[in-house]
This record gives sequence, C-alpha cells and structure tokens, in this order.
Amino acid sequence: MKQTFTATAKKTNTGLQVESGTRGFKILMDEPKELGGTNTGMNPVEALLCALGSCQSIVAFSFAQANGINLQGFSVKLEGDMDSDVRNGYTEIRYSMHFKSNASQEKLEDFAHFIESRCPVGDCLKDGVPLKLTKIVAE
Amino acid sequence: MKQTFTATAKKTNTGLQVESGTRGFKILMDEPKELGGTNTGMNPVEALLCALGSCQSIVAFSFAQANGINLQGFSVKLEGDMDSDVRNGYTEIRYSMHFKSNASQEKLEDFAHFIESRCPVGDCLKDGVPLKLTKIVAE
Repeated sequence: MKQTFTATAKKTNTGLQVESGTRGFKILMDEPKELGGTNTGMNPVEALLCALGSCQSIVAFSFAQANGINLQGFSVKLEGDMDSDVRNGYTEIRYSMHFKSNASQEKLEDFAHFIESRCPVGDCLKDGVPLKLTKIVAE
Repeated sequence: MKQTFTATAKKTNTGLQVESGTRGFKILMDEPKELGGTNTGMNPVEALLCALGSCQSIVAFSFAQANGINLQGFSVKLEGDMDSDVRNGYTEIRYSMHFKSNASQEKLEDFAHFIESRCPVGDCLKDGVPLKLTKIVAE
C-alpha cells in the first residue's frame, strides 16, 4: 500500500518555539533554557524519541494477537546520546520494552524483535531515509 | 559536548492511543480510523515529520545571524512517502523551506543547505542511527 503523510512546522514569535502539526493536531516544540530556548515544549530530538517509542507501542498492540501474545500493557523507556564532536544527530538510541503480559520471557523476546522489525519510525532511523529539499521560497 | 536525552511512551487504555513525553511535556499519538486507531492525535510517522521540520526551524533561527541572514520568519512543509511493498519506513521525505527575509535567493539557497547540514533530526534520518534494545521486561 502506498501512502503519503504530511506536516508543517512554523517558527512562532517566541524565542526558538516552533508550532508543528498535521490534520488539526499540533505539537509545540522549543529548547530548554540551557540550549537557548524558553522551555515551552520538548525539543525535536526528544520528540524523535517519543515518535519511536509511540510507534513501537502501536506496533506492539496491533500485532500482539497475531503473535499469540495476550498483551495487557506496553511501555518503552528511551534514551539517545549526542556528541557534537562525532555528528549532529544521535550517536546511539537505546530503549527498554516493558510488557504487561502472561507470555513467557522467551516469547516476549521474540515479540520484542518482531516489534523492532516492523516499526516504521524505527526502520527510518535504523537504515536512514532519502531527504529531498524541493523548494526554497522567499516570502 | 556530550548530552543524553530521554523519553517514555506508554499505551493508554484507548484503542491504539499512546502517551509519550519527557520533562513534563507530553504528546498524545494515535492512528486515524482508517489505520485502526481512534484519531485522537497525529501518528508517529507524522510526528517524525514534525520533529524534522521543527528541528530545521530551530537551526534556521539559531544560525541566521552567524550566516548573515536577517530572518523574520521561517516555515517548512514536509511530506513523506510510504510503500509497504518496499520497506516499513518512509521511502522518501521531501520538504520545502519558506524564508521571510530580504536576503538574495542565492544566499537563502546556501543557508537552506547549511540548515540541512546542521539539523540533528535530519542527520539522524539521513544517515541512520544505531538502535539498541537493552532490556525486555515482563511486568
């Protein structure tokens, strides 16, 4: 199935604050004070971790039954390291997955790897995505 | 400079809805009805586009002055293609950058490429990030 998703992001008049969104849903992002912002929202690299953990959570619940897992709850704790001497992006992202389920540890481990293999945001991050700047407009 | 960012994501009791967040800031994600959700928030691949556009916006304002650009406004329009026959993640992400500035088109083009080269989320997406599953916990 082919599908195209869209979003917009626009600097507000407040410090480094940015309003982004799509389909009527909005996220306000900003930087903490120590990174030059006014701390009115999480920053984009934190939002990236949220997108990854949320995507894993949705994959977990969407595919639990098909994997024979009785899933009562699911959460992810994520952390990402940055080192400006190495690169601008994360040097590594780590996460732990927490299942509320009566399935065996072995079955949960198989399912955790299944989740990793199916997660769209994880796939983007693991293997990268071609980025294309299509237009530069002066307004 | 080395820094570690963190986030958590947790399935709520509503359909595919996930609450994610960090430092007291929250994002609610969900899938639209046609993708099996209850449409209470944008989905993770849309949030990924928001994180990218917001990151580019923050980089633009943080570095405009140092690049000799008088920047009065900035926004990004993004779209990403998915094709489940090809991969689980985006096959391509495209964006246009919109500058409110009296700088020449040539200067804005140089600056747009500078923004791309410095954006942490863009760097993660372009070149990928090592992902590490550290723990699988049954609760």
